[in-house]
Amino acid sequence: MPALPIALDAMGGDNAPDAPVQGALQYRESVLLVGRSSPLRALAPALPVLEASQVVEMEDKATAVLRSKPDASINVAIRALAEKRAAAVVSCGNSGAVMIAAIKGLGLLPHVERPALVTVVPRADGGEAVLLDLGANVDCKPELLAQFAVMGEAYARCVLDLQRPRVGLISNGEERSKGNAQVRAALPLVEDLPLDFVGPIEPFEAFHGAADVVVCDGFVGNVMLKTVEATVDVSVNLMQREIARMPHWRLSAHFMRSALRRFRARTNSSAYGGGQLLGVNGVVVVGHGRSDPDAVEAALKVAHRCVQQGVVGEVTKALDDWGLPG
Amino acid sequence: MPALPIALDAMGGDNAPDAPVQGALQYRESVLLVGRSSPLRALAPALPVLEASQVVEMEDKATAVLRSKPDASINVAIRALAEKRAAAVVSCGNSGAVMIAAIKGLGLLPHVERPALVTVVPRADGGEAVLLDLGANVDCKPELLAQFAVMGEAYARCVLDLQRPRVGLISNGEERSKGNAQVRAALPLVEDLPLDFVGPIEPFEAFHGAADVVVCDGFVGNVMLKTVEATVDVSVNLMQREIARMPHWRLSAHFMRSALRRFRARTNSSAYGGGQLLGVNGVVVVGHGRSDPDAVEAALKVAHRCVQQGVVGEVTKALDDWGLPG
Repeated sequence: MPALPIALDAMGGDNAPDAPVQGALQYRESVLLVGRSSPLRALAPALPVLEASQVVEMEDKATAVLRSKPDASINVAIRALAEKRAAAVVSCGNSGAVMIAAIKGLGLLPHVERPALVTVVPRADGGEAVLLDLGANVDCKPELLAQFAVMGEAYARCVLDLQRPRVGLISNGEERSKGNAQVRAALPLVEDLPLDFVGPIEPFEAFHGAADVVVCDGFVGNVMLKTVEATVDVSVNLMQREIARMPHWRLSAHFMRSALRRFRARTNSSAYGGGQLLGVNGVVVVGHGRSDPDAVEAALKVAHRCVQQGVVGEVTKALDDWGLPG
Repeated sequence: MPALPIALDAMGGDNAPDAPVQGALQYRESVLLVGRSSPLRALAPALPVLEASQVVEMEDKATAVLRSKPDASINVAIRALAEKRAAAVVSCGNSGAVMIAAIKGLGLLPHVERPALVTVVPRADGGEAVLLDLGANVDCKPELLAQFAVMGEAYARCVLDLQRPRVGLISNGEERSKGNAQVRAALPLVEDLPLDFVGPIEPFEAFHGAADVVVCDGFVGNVMLKTVEATVDVSVNLMQREIARMPHWRLSAHFMRSALRRFRARTNSSAYGGGQLLGVNGVVVVGHGRSDPDAVEAALKVAHRCVQQGVVGEVTKALDDWGLPG
């Protein structure tokens, strides 16, 4: 249990402040709500509040928030982490604004050019894999993919509790001749790292256990994650239609309802608690903008686990130990 | 019904020649098997065979097959189409070799720089969408995405039977400021086309009915398609575990088995019969390398439908009518 509370950006996300506050109440460890104190105190009189007078609006440019609204909740939360008044930050607000606040307020770890957003996804073999980048960097030079490989491998050692995670690079085929120009250029750079690199892999193999760490640029990773979410929805929808077709569906539907509910809960990306920003000097977890209280609670748990596992220290060590290209 | 048979590359795919031959036998319309005549005649004495003396091996470079093995089954099949002895070509073999044979043997349509691979995917709203490119072009300049939009829109009019399909460009957000450099550069080019362009869309929205034509580069499209396949597998796997957890699962499992089977069949990409190569002067359908007989049959049906609907003519007209950039 971290001695310090987790600072929660209570004004960030489509359902703020209700969903963050409710998520904080569900979470049983120590949370510091960051935002406008009067509505927050009304919603949750028992929780500590750190006043942040400004609120990020939809119209605000993510890149401008740090300068134009220094007292926005995300900026105040990051300062609390930088000043060691919090153990981690969780925000479901504008991810661009979170990233800039984190880079400027916490600093990048040595050797890191750009932070990456990472999450854990379920695999068909019952295991889990770490996937990065999820959208922090939509235009990546090849050197960045090598940095993501190093950071993702350290993350997988902590969070998936693996000794030597296998690393794969997303491509459109396993042959070296496949891949776009970016992947082909990144391949020798990742091969030069002292990792258990399984080579280029396709998403199908990645979700079937071929790798524990799945590396791609942020555009591709974002597309993958959102395709998973969409496919789960399509699947549940089709399953429900199939159930309705069954001759004794009234009987079976009873048993199926709870199965479908657990299925959706397990595969819903919000159950995984959002992505952690790797490469900044602190634990920052970015939740989905549409997060409900359960998703906020899950994000708080991810942050807690990252603090406990010493993810930042492990990533720092991995970056220091290995002579990184770029 | 096409008067001419569909030429089927009987030597292409992981399960050749058995799966192609079995698929041809299941298919009720006219098929011309292309490959080594002695094994093919033994497997299917009743089907006509066009002799092709050479076979493409795993070691063959896709780009070299046309020159090094002019009598490979894919090259012989494409010649039969070019010489109007077949109405279409279906192959589950090396997609690179199929593409080169098609470009050289059939020629590109006017204004087309590169062909694209297109397929139909199910949506959560019960509808279907056309998705392209699926991997024919892993490095696309922005002009190519505009060409894909024009070809995909014409394809959707034929195959989905829509008057004015809505076209979307895959991105990591709906805002114009999102997207990688390629998407941001393609955006004004697609906007200039006389299409019902809904703008940049995320995969989640694409699979929920926001567009009928979903445009992306071949690397991203390949990742999307294979992520869908993988997620369906993960879903079925998790559902089966959930069923096993149910208190009365023996009873329910009976009803669920057929539902899961139909669910997998509906979402299995092989049920969609592979992708059509758009932009070449003829109907060429590329099936999955792992195609089983059902998938081969589905690919033959796709080819048949494309011939009947006059897809090549519609795409040609769309390209001619609209002043294309690039």
